[in-house]
Amino acid sequence: MAGLNEHYLKLTAGYLFPEIGRRVSAYQESNPGADLIRLGIGDVVLPLPDAVREAMHAAIDEMGSAEGFRGYGPEKGYDFLREAIVREEFAPRGVTISAEEIFVSDGSKCDSGNIQEIFSSDATLAVPDPVYPVYVDTNVMAGRSGEADAQGRYAGIEYLPCTAENGFVPSPPDKPVDLVYLCFPNNPTGSVASHELLEQWVAWAGKHGAVLLYDAAYEAFITDDSLPHSIFEIDGAREVAMEFRSFSKSAGFTGTRCAYVVIPNELKGDAGGSRVSVAELWNRRHSTKFNGVSYVVQRGAEAALSVAGRTETRQRVDYYMDNARVIREGLDKVGVTTFGGVNAPYVWARTPGDVSSWDFFDLLLDKANVVGTPGSGFGACGEGYFRLSAFGISDKVVEAVERINTRL
Amino acid sequence: MAGLNEHYLKLTAGYLFPEIGRRVSAYQESNPGADLIRLGIGDVVLPLPDAVREAMHAAIDEMGSAEGFRGYGPEKGYDFLREAIVREEFAPRGVTISAEEIFVSDGSKCDSGNIQEIFSSDATLAVPDPVYPVYVDTNVMAGRSGEADAQGRYAGIEYLPCTAENGFVPSPPDKPVDLVYLCFPNNPTGSVASHELLEQWVAWAGKHGAVLLYDAAYEAFITDDSLPHSIFEIDGAREVAMEFRSFSKSAGFTGTRCAYVVIPNELKGDAGGSRVSVAELWNRRHSTKFNGVSYVVQRGAEAALSVAGRTETRQRVDYYMDNARVIREGLDKVGVTTFGGVNAPYVWARTPGDVSSWDFFDLLLDKANVVGTPGSGFGACGEGYFRLSAFGISDKVVEAVERINTRL
Repeated sequence: MAGLNEHYLKLTAGYLFPEIGRRVSAYQESNPGADLIRLGIGDVVLPLPDAVREAMHAAIDEMGSAEGFRGYGPEKGYDFLREAIVREEFAPRGVTISAEEIFVSDGSKCDSGNIQEIFSSDATLAVPDPVYPVYVDTNVMAGRSGEADAQGRYAGIEYLPCTAENGFVPSPPDKPVDLVYLCFPNNPTGSVASHELLEQWVAWAGKHGAVLLYDAAYEAFITDDSLPHSIFEIDGAREVAMEFRSFSKSAGFTGTRCAYVVIPNELKGDAGGSRVSVAELWNRRHSTKFNGVSYVVQRGAEAALSVAGRTETRQRVDYYMDNARVIREGLDKVGVTTFGGVNAPYVWARTPGDVSSWDFFDLLLDKANVVGTPGSGFGACGEGYFRLSAFGISDKVVEAVERINTRL
Repeated sequence: MAGLNEHYLKLTAGYLFPEIGRRVSAYQESNPGADLIRLGIGDVVLPLPDAVREAMHAAIDEMGSAEGFRGYGPEKGYDFLREAIVREEFAPRGVTISAEEIFVSDGSKCDSGNIQEIFSSDATLAVPDPVYPVYVDTNVMAGRSGEADAQGRYAGIEYLPCTAENGFVPSPPDKPVDLVYLCFPNNPTGSVASHELLEQWVAWAGKHGAVLLYDAAYEAFITDDSLPHSIFEIDGAREVAMEFRSFSKSAGFTGTRCAYVVIPNELKGDAGGSRVSVAELWNRRHSTKFNGVSYVVQRGAEAALSVAGRTETRQRVDYYMDNARVIREGLDKVGVTTFGGVNAPYVWARTPGDVSSWDFFDLLLDKANVVGTPGSGFGACGEGYFRLSAFGISDKVVEAVERINTRL
């Protein structure tokens, strides 16, 4: 019988969000009348921007004639989109990125999950704890860990505790590692990185020859102008970092699918004793295992970066950030300690009393019919916390907070 | 410095199609006036069907309201699409597949490239020669081979020669292997599999505990009613095979992106001495590293399976198959020996004289301004052959054949 990848058997449980889905479905089956409010998975709810839809309609019409039809596109993405990204996402912040350094994809989950493939199978890695599960699970699947302990921490992976004491911001580890996953604004804690923090990380990575895998999927939600939106705002970052960006949360693309990775030419790794371009390996991976994002979707993404698109995107971000404020203020009122939710669409809250994260998830579902995310689903340091997402219709968010305040 | 995946360094050259793109670009730069006809990469040219575009327009309109908006969809694909696939693609051929066994994706290139991940890193594999390069390259990247020899064959991979003598149809190998990639109708040779051949393979796989990775991306091009469209038309296949299918070539989705894999519940592999469901591992991979296909695209794919969509799809297939006939007959007329092109959109032809495949590629480009694909790009046994794709505007195909007949 063909051998399967045994590393998969090390995975402690189902991927977090399907497990939440399972519990919610089970609850709904037993309580068909329950009016659930979902602040769990972090999925946007506002309509796709007009500018995006108009561009997608036009692209579909183009596809209706032999002249306008587009078949296979460039695996890295169309120039029109990569150039718009350079112009609208990086240039305004004084960051010089070449369109050649951008790889368009169908999602940051895919990118941040697939990127580990181009590194050595014995590359060491560090992740914050709590952390977006994809970073860890994909490395476990690739055999870069041992078994999980009782807390769900895998042997061989360096965990960087993020706690209330350090403001949920990880410091560089004492020992060298090859790969470090960082995410700012952070999912799940909503913490942010200052210039100083990123300078510290870039310097550390330069010293140890590490690669920083910087997830900036939530950069659009930064409200404090002094904070960096991109790791490439830091001197020296081009030598040590790549960055993941997405249209999912800002432009409402979770169901439309478009994202990208920026890999600077200066980023190198070691292969057989030679310095090899990381972008070159990723390009080989991307062109062998991927076939580009739908043309219609790329036109939509381009439109999200137009003047009209940026106005609509900004409105959506503001709307969700107002929800975050409502959640923070509502929980504060009943004495629940909260973090995040100021420069990020996630509010990270302590569970009241000594209730565990999953017990609180069940309690919240049962008593308030509100779906949150258990903090422990993101790592051992998340135990005793839960995450509420600001991605909801505002009336519903107000009602969810009201229910939490009155029913628990 | 972080270690990179050194297996990538074993890859003999760029992925075939980017290399063709490079040569074509270089030629165009030196010959800006050249009127190229592209019968190389196998990319469709006819407009996206009306039914597909209408459904995509409607889906975009839905996304414009809070009620109709769709965020994250099910990673495996929406029920509406998976149920349409069961009903329209399998049931009419008497094949019972459950919607749960279908995993919708953004392309068969992605699926057939990613699938190897869920198998053991020391799983052995066999591939036909010539072969679609993705099957081989992705296994090389994963470390399942040694170095390549002068012919481009990697140590440790079992190659199954497909030659004029065996009708370009591989027989099961003498020794057991874990994974076998099969593709019928075949890319690149255009050969097909009879029921008897597939029965032989299914029996062999059952005996040796092998998994057949069956690529049926071109099944819509079968014109001979007696041939199987799916490996699941063969008794016992559910225990030994999975199947890749795509909307790319039949419905014109190369630039729109939608495909799927069928993994029957009965297909098992060995993990840690236990029989484990292959579908379960793939589901874990799919839900961890992938986030579903664009809702708009899935609605388009569903429409391709509607009555109107199937009529338009059939017209496109017929159009391309008429091109295949023109190519076959045109080459026959000047004494070039051809294969395929009857139940497949590819014509596989011997290069005239003793010209190598790449030399003939350059000759064809230079003398006839026609872009083909060198047979040797698909494997050692492809040397001395070239592939012409039937995916072209018919006038251009006629002209390409005319040029080949008069200018070479």
